[in-house]
Amino acid sequence: MSTPAVSETPPVSPEVIARIKAVVGDAGWSEDPMRVDPKLTEWRGKWKGHTPLLVLPKSTHEVSAVVKICFDNGVAITPQGGNTGLVGGQIPFGEILISLERMKAIRDVAPTDDTMVLEAGLTLLDAQQIAEKADRYFPLSLAAEGTATVGGVISTNAGGTAVLRYGVTRDLVSGLEVVLPNGDVFHGLKRLRKDNTGYDIKHMFIGAEGTLGIITAASLKLFPIMNSRATAIVAFDSAQKAIDLLVRAKQETGGQVEAFELMGRYGLSLVLKHIPDTREPLEGEYPWYALIEVASGDPQGASAAMERLLEAAFEEELVLDAVIAQNETQAAEFWRLREDHSAAEKAEGAAWKHDISVPLSRMAEYMEEGKAAIEAFLPGARLVAFGHVGDGNVHFNVIVPEGMDAAKFNALRDEGAKVVHDLVNAYEGSISAEHGLGRMKTNEALVYKDPVAVAAMQALRSALDPKRIMNPHVLF
Amino acid sequence: MSTPAVSETPPVSPEVIARIKAVVGDAGWSEDPMRVDPKLTEWRGKWKGHTPLLVLPKSTHEVSAVVKICFDNGVAITPQGGNTGLVGGQIPFGEILISLERMKAIRDVAPTDDTMVLEAGLTLLDAQQIAEKADRYFPLSLAAEGTATVGGVISTNAGGTAVLRYGVTRDLVSGLEVVLPNGDVFHGLKRLRKDNTGYDIKHMFIGAEGTLGIITAASLKLFPIMNSRATAIVAFDSAQKAIDLLVRAKQETGGQVEAFELMGRYGLSLVLKHIPDTREPLEGEYPWYALIEVASGDPQGASAAMERLLEAAFEEELVLDAVIAQNETQAAEFWRLREDHSAAEKAEGAAWKHDISVPLSRMAEYMEEGKAAIEAFLPGARLVAFGHVGDGNVHFNVIVPEGMDAAKFNALRDEGAKVVHDLVNAYEGSISAEHGLGRMKTNEALVYKDPVAVAAMQALRSALDPKRIMNPHVLF
Repeated sequence: MSTPAVSETPPVSPEVIARIKAVVGDAGWSEDPMRVDPKLTEWRGKWKGHTPLLVLPKSTHEVSAVVKICFDNGVAITPQGGNTGLVGGQIPFGEILISLERMKAIRDVAPTDDTMVLEAGLTLLDAQQIAEKADRYFPLSLAAEGTATVGGVISTNAGGTAVLRYGVTRDLVSGLEVVLPNGDVFHGLKRLRKDNTGYDIKHMFIGAEGTLGIITAASLKLFPIMNSRATAIVAFDSAQKAIDLLVRAKQETGGQVEAFELMGRYGLSLVLKHIPDTREPLEGEYPWYALIEVASGDPQGASAAMERLLEAAFEEELVLDAVIAQNETQAAEFWRLREDHSAAEKAEGAAWKHDISVPLSRMAEYMEEGKAAIEAFLPGARLVAFGHVGDGNVHFNVIVPEGMDAAKFNALRDEGAKVVHDLVNAYEGSISAEHGLGRMKTNEALVYKDPVAVAAMQALRSALDPKRIMNPHVLF
Repeated sequence: MSTPAVSETPPVSPEVIARIKAVVGDAGWSEDPMRVDPKLTEWRGKWKGHTPLLVLPKSTHEVSAVVKICFDNGVAITPQGGNTGLVGGQIPFGEILISLERMKAIRDVAPTDDTMVLEAGLTLLDAQQIAEKADRYFPLSLAAEGTATVGGVISTNAGGTAVLRYGVTRDLVSGLEVVLPNGDVFHGLKRLRKDNTGYDIKHMFIGAEGTLGIITAASLKLFPIMNSRATAIVAFDSAQKAIDLLVRAKQETGGQVEAFELMGRYGLSLVLKHIPDTREPLEGEYPWYALIEVASGDPQGASAAMERLLEAAFEEELVLDAVIAQNETQAAEFWRLREDHSAAEKAEGAAWKHDISVPLSRMAEYMEEGKAAIEAFLPGARLVAFGHVGDGNVHFNVIVPEGMDAAKFNALRDEGAKVVHDLVNAYEGSISAEHGLGRMKTNEALVYKDPVAVAAMQALRSALDPKRIMNPHVLF
């Protein structure tokens, strides 16, 4: 796919480049294409940018000094974490590129406080492992966790597979250290659960996609490791019944449902067709499936809760069939059926992807109406809806009609997105549940957002970044 | 106690008053002292203010119209909820007083979405009851819940007794409708768990103490009703051992501890001395006690978890004695021992109150050092430390030395607070864990806050309220 049209930042003077290089020293910048190019290319190849300089600061102090030079000279900056973003927000087009990859210190691990303070360049997998070593659980988990960084997941308020129980990234952050657009350092790493002394401004930076400053370190919340876990695949004759079971599951387990992932038969059939070593989870074929995971502090709690739940669901004819994983290997097999949906889609052909959320109570209705709308727009289009239905969030993806030319199909992408997103808007949903807006969706979001909210965001942004130097072409 | 020195707002012109009256109609304002005076007086009598007009809008539209008039004329406003605040932030000194008491509509209750949309004037007790009718649990709970309002608890980011498991008010809000300082209405009532389309600006208004706008309605999160609950009183020889048990309890129950309230022997002895119908919870007397509550979705889960926990704690000699409530009556008796601390203190004599938090890992050390510092500052002063230790938050209160004149003692209050708060600051804690700053603590907080954070807050405030008309003498 070719790079979409983008806004460009004007050239940066050699004097400014020289001053930045002097501040960070030889190890702190690079012009080596081997080092720079991978950071200019979005991982699926959708955007290929350019930068006058890749800066690699090793400390908050260096980040601050570089930003101050840029601020004084009105030079724009794009901050970058692990470059796993899906909406192009991390790719510079003429901005100074600041990568946090050298900031990997573990500043503090305090299991008694259930917090750890990590620098922005550590990966999400690092964070999970650091927590585990301290006999704690850090629940944020997503496909790119080996590459995505602490700074990146916070800047994009990432979602992932554990949102149902633990919330989005925003809910997992207890404090931040941020270099503001003027180069000042906001020291907000307090590891307190309660502090009512003014606005909680860390929330401005979470999900700001690098437009309000550069997150250099974060205090993250830790949770107990669960003592039991039960995983099941359950079959339904409608999406609504899956949602009914989800509602029931939350009540009956007292909030111990960790995952509730919905899959349609068509999506599952693509996984079984394209992905080796996968097999039908149940004997029959059913219109809808859910992968359900329950976890408990009680060593016997999870399977007891799952059995209680499914027994009641069978009695009430909510479910058609179900299987509980007998061991970890089987649980992992069940998870692969869900996680391989993207790979299976890719193998089947070109697809338009939509990352949407609507209120759970209207999800089944939305999916039905959305499917009809897409089929009316493009006869033969194949809908694959799956994902974090527990969070009201599904990936509502459209695969090219059989026999249709991919280029022709892709040319209709924006119109197709409008069909999907107009309906999302009518259902009071979000056109970007977890991926953010970046360069891809900022203009589209303007169509749907409350103008008062947009004006307030713009005023708040101007207050912190009067020269609009931070990721200037992203967000409003 | 006399009203402390306050900043005053200049008089408001009769023309502006007349325009406001015209917009809200006869039922929408009052100059009747019977109606107005109770709203000008802080409930403990610490502040007695005045207002040119009490405005009682019945809709968001009316709030918006009134604020627009004030904005156009640069007239200051103090918004008020249930007038239960503890730091004077709700009392006007010359500002127009806007009470939300007529905005009591239930806009929506959606148990499938685990949300309810309530107008700001409903009380917290109303909110709990509305949730219960929908077979859901709204966990925010505090002493003033019969009077405190939805708008008020959100504007002050209230804490209360269920923070350990469910978080502070901020964590319970999924959306807000706010009249901004220029009169525009921010429509942010979406009931989505996930929406990454720009800054999540609702967080600016939560805990803003009415300085950034007027919250007119909120979408609140609902939770499952637990199927079992176990309450215990446990005795320790040190505060550190209580904290050790708390840490263990969180791990072993998988986060099902709902309350962990610490009490010292001296505080408990005052309750037993002053409050009728209370009795020793255990046979012996011990230096420290905790009230522990565990709740579970499993009908047998809570008592099983509590028994497992206490058994292990006895084996490891963490606890000296313990008793589990045998029924709800006994559980309520245990809770009264904790809740009557404030009343018992009051009966014993004048007290300085401090609402502080420090990291849990340093709490025991802080309390010891703080006690020594207070005793050095004022020999004979009696320290009562109790409260939400599970949140790292204790009420660290100092009772007048026996025989000392209360007026003389109260004259030392600010110096005493400095002793307590300097130490809190050295421990990286907060001088207002849950009560906010209001008129009482804003200037004091300036001593301790990160100047970069204060400057950022001021810039953000100016962006939304360039004329500083919203509660102008509160916060920075």
